Amino acid sequence: MRPYNTEIISVGTELLLGHISNTDARDISEMLSRIGINVKYHTVVGDNPERLRSCVEVAKTRADIIITTGGLGPTCDDLTKQILAETFGLKLVENEDEVRSLYDYIRNHRVTPNNLSQAMLPEGCTVFHNLWGTAPGCAFKAEGKTVIMMPGPPVECVPMFRTYGIPYLRSLSDEEIVSHSVRIFGIGESGVDDMFADEMNAMTNPTMAPYAKECDCLLQITAKAGCETEAENMMAPVIAHVKERLGDFVYGMDIECLEEAVFPMLKEKGMTFATAESCTGGEIAKRFTDIPGASSVFLGGAVVYTNEVKAKLLGLDPEMIEAKGAVSREVAEALAENVRTVTEADIGIGVTGLAGPDGDGVHEVGTVFVAMAVEGQTYVRALALGPRRTRSFIRRMSGNHAYDMMRRWLTGLKVEL
Amino acid sequence: MRPYNTEIISVGTELLLGHISNTDARDISEMLSRIGINVKYHTVVGDNPERLRSCVEVAKTRADIIITTGGLGPTCDDLTKQILAETFGLKLVENEDEVRSLYDYIRNHRVTPNNLSQAMLPEGCTVFHNLWGTAPGCAFKAEGKTVIMMPGPPVECVPMFRTYGIPYLRSLSDEEIVSHSVRIFGIGESGVDDMFADEMNAMTNPTMAPYAKECDCLLQITAKAGCETEAENMMAPVIAHVKERLGDFVYGMDIECLEEAVFPMLKEKGMTFATAESCTGGEIAKRFTDIPGASSVFLGGAVVYTNEVKAKLLGLDPEMIEAKGAVSREVAEALAENVRTVTEADIGIGVTGLAGPDGDGVHEVGTVFVAMAVEGQTYVRALALGPRRTRSFIRRMSGNHAYDMMRRWLTGLKVEL
Repeated sequence: MRPYNTEIISVGTELLLGHISNTDARDISEMLSRIGINVKYHTVVGDNPERLRSCVEVAKTRADIIITTGGLGPTCDDLTKQILAETFGLKLVENEDEVRSLYDYIRNHRVTPNNLSQAMLPEGCTVFHNLWGTAPGCAFKAEGKTVIMMPGPPVECVPMFRTYGIPYLRSLSDEEIVSHSVRIFGIGESGVDDMFADEMNAMTNPTMAPYAKECDCLLQITAKAGCETEAENMMAPVIAHVKERLGDFVYGMDIECLEEAVFPMLKEKGMTFATAESCTGGEIAKRFTDIPGASSVFLGGAVVYTNEVKAKLLGLDPEMIEAKGAVSREVAEALAENVRTVTEADIGIGVTGLAGPDGDGVHEVGTVFVAMAVEGQTYVRALALGPRRTRSFIRRMSGNHAYDMMRRWLTGLKVEL
Repeated sequence: MRPYNTEIISVGTELLLGHISNTDARDISEMLSRIGINVKYHTVVGDNPERLRSCVEVAKTRADIIITTGGLGPTCDDLTKQILAETFGLKLVENEDEVRSLYDYIRNHRVTPNNLSQAMLPEGCTVFHNLWGTAPGCAFKAEGKTVIMMPGPPVECVPMFRTYGIPYLRSLSDEEIVSHSVRIFGIGESGVDDMFADEMNAMTNPTMAPYAKECDCLLQITAKAGCETEAENMMAPVIAHVKERLGDFVYGMDIECLEEAVFPMLKEKGMTFATAESCTGGEIAKRFTDIPGASSVFLGGAVVYTNEVKAKLLGLDPEMIEAKGAVSREVAEALAENVRTVTEADIGIGVTGLAGPDGDGVHEVGTVFVAMAVEGQTYVRALALGPRRTRSFIRRMSGNHAYDMMRRWLTGLKVEL
């Protein structure tokens, strides 16, 4: 099969000024990767005819499919259709259906000549009527290339590409592409890379690549085949092999974070948890409650930023805190045990430590104790995340350890490091 | 002054597969626009040496400044430094400081040859030490071009570009560009745009432009002049005028969020606060404790996701909750009052509502009550944020209202909507 290399050209000065991210290119790329079309380049250019023309000329030299987003609307700096038609030697002609539909849509407002320019489309093109806005999209084939033009606003671009762009392009391809991500915690991206580097270099289909996330990493495995089942069958032994070698480090497939792994495990067992957070300051609760439906397993907890509040909200013994220090294994244990008792949760999580940038004169920044109390036992991880890490990293990583401890306990693995 | 046309080349197959949006290019573009450097193109290319090389060749023909993001990490597909050095005829040499710092950073883990490749940098370059990760960035001038390379992960790229990239580029210009942002809460970007549209269109130096953020907005005012003082003097009357017209809606200058405005106000008054969160699930506490030094004014609080925990942790009357409903003005008030009493804080914040996506059969998703108890009085805002908003928006906006209530009370303004 031909590779159908694709370039997405996004037109809009607002992108170059950093007002918005180019989510259109992201969303279109994701849709294309699922149907086996390779996106090789994204280009962003402003509302400027000369620069857009030169970008289209470059794209013609390196892509089979050129997809544009933006520059189809009624304002005077919307030039995409004119430039694309011109570059491929096509005329713009008024499309009667679109003129009618414009009058219909605008209704009570006056239709201006600018509005009408939206109905001017390259001769012979396939028109994509816009049900989410006014500017139609279109597609044509010329000079051995396939060109698709989409409006810029993501609320129009994404449904239009899904509705019209994908079916139009599917007919070009006879392959399916399927991808899975193996999520990993406890070993870094470079460790994973070392472990599989030789294999990865030797692989062509399926392929495998490691990606670093802020506080964990993943291996992305991708296969192309004639159909989805065949692609899945090609990946199955690779995934099995990777999972075997990585063992306990694998926390899930095709999910985004540890809490997403823990949620269904708790639900399945009908267990609940509660949190008592000092240095993480609500981060662990916040992350879990980002998940819709979190209330079925998460009861709540306490954010205890001072010793007094540790005593008042959760009944910690002030003398013990004084004796052991707020940043200590014992305080983490007491936080986990007491929040579990007070809230009557099955699992209690307690975290205390130094997220920085300032230290306490005793411990190094990055010292964190994460405790989990469950079924009469309390587990603790003593972390030394390093004083050069950011506050944000230390807090997020502490949360990951809390979720990793729950994940390991819930699946019968060793909890402590 | 020369225009210094800039191209940002982002390297990473994950961008072309649509796994992530190119937020690095957005964030760098926004920073550059504030110092008057024109971004003309964004290009995204995969981890492929030939294609990256051809993109760099294209960029050399059309840009004065080439900024790369990504491809500096330890994995085998990280090729940016090699290709850029090669394209400009430079050798990569091992940087001793970076080698030492790598050993220091990785500590308990094994330093692999892959890790060490990070310390290989173009000869004669300016090294940007990475305080947020391990891969250093760098900059060099060659063939009349300025090249800057930044790591890809946004948590590294953005602070590194702000810390090193912006000052490096500022030194290229003999003009000073100074920019201030007026942060606004309570009126949207289009409202601000309507208010100042005619003035903004007529302005050339200083310039003024509105930007929408997720749950607030800002007006960016920028002046170019021979020196900083001159630029400041040009902006002063504009800023005064804008502040006067926007009045109470302005919550701060050159800050990022409402909690950053509230923090120094509390500190100055020597006041403390505590939070009791239902639907926000720890988000308000988490956001405040993102700020280093938060413990001087924030005592802690409770995350109360169930009625039982509302009663157990904060002593809310279960019968009152039953009678009024968990999502009610009365529960928000009781949360604010009780958390204030229990923690002995000066200000208590209580939030209850429906963040969605599921409703409770009584209220519409987006119904939120935000309460503040202070000096014997309890204020409540009843919000109807709308069922079409995301869970993330509803939670963040609720937090913004809590901080806005504190800000208004602390500055003697009317608190309730």
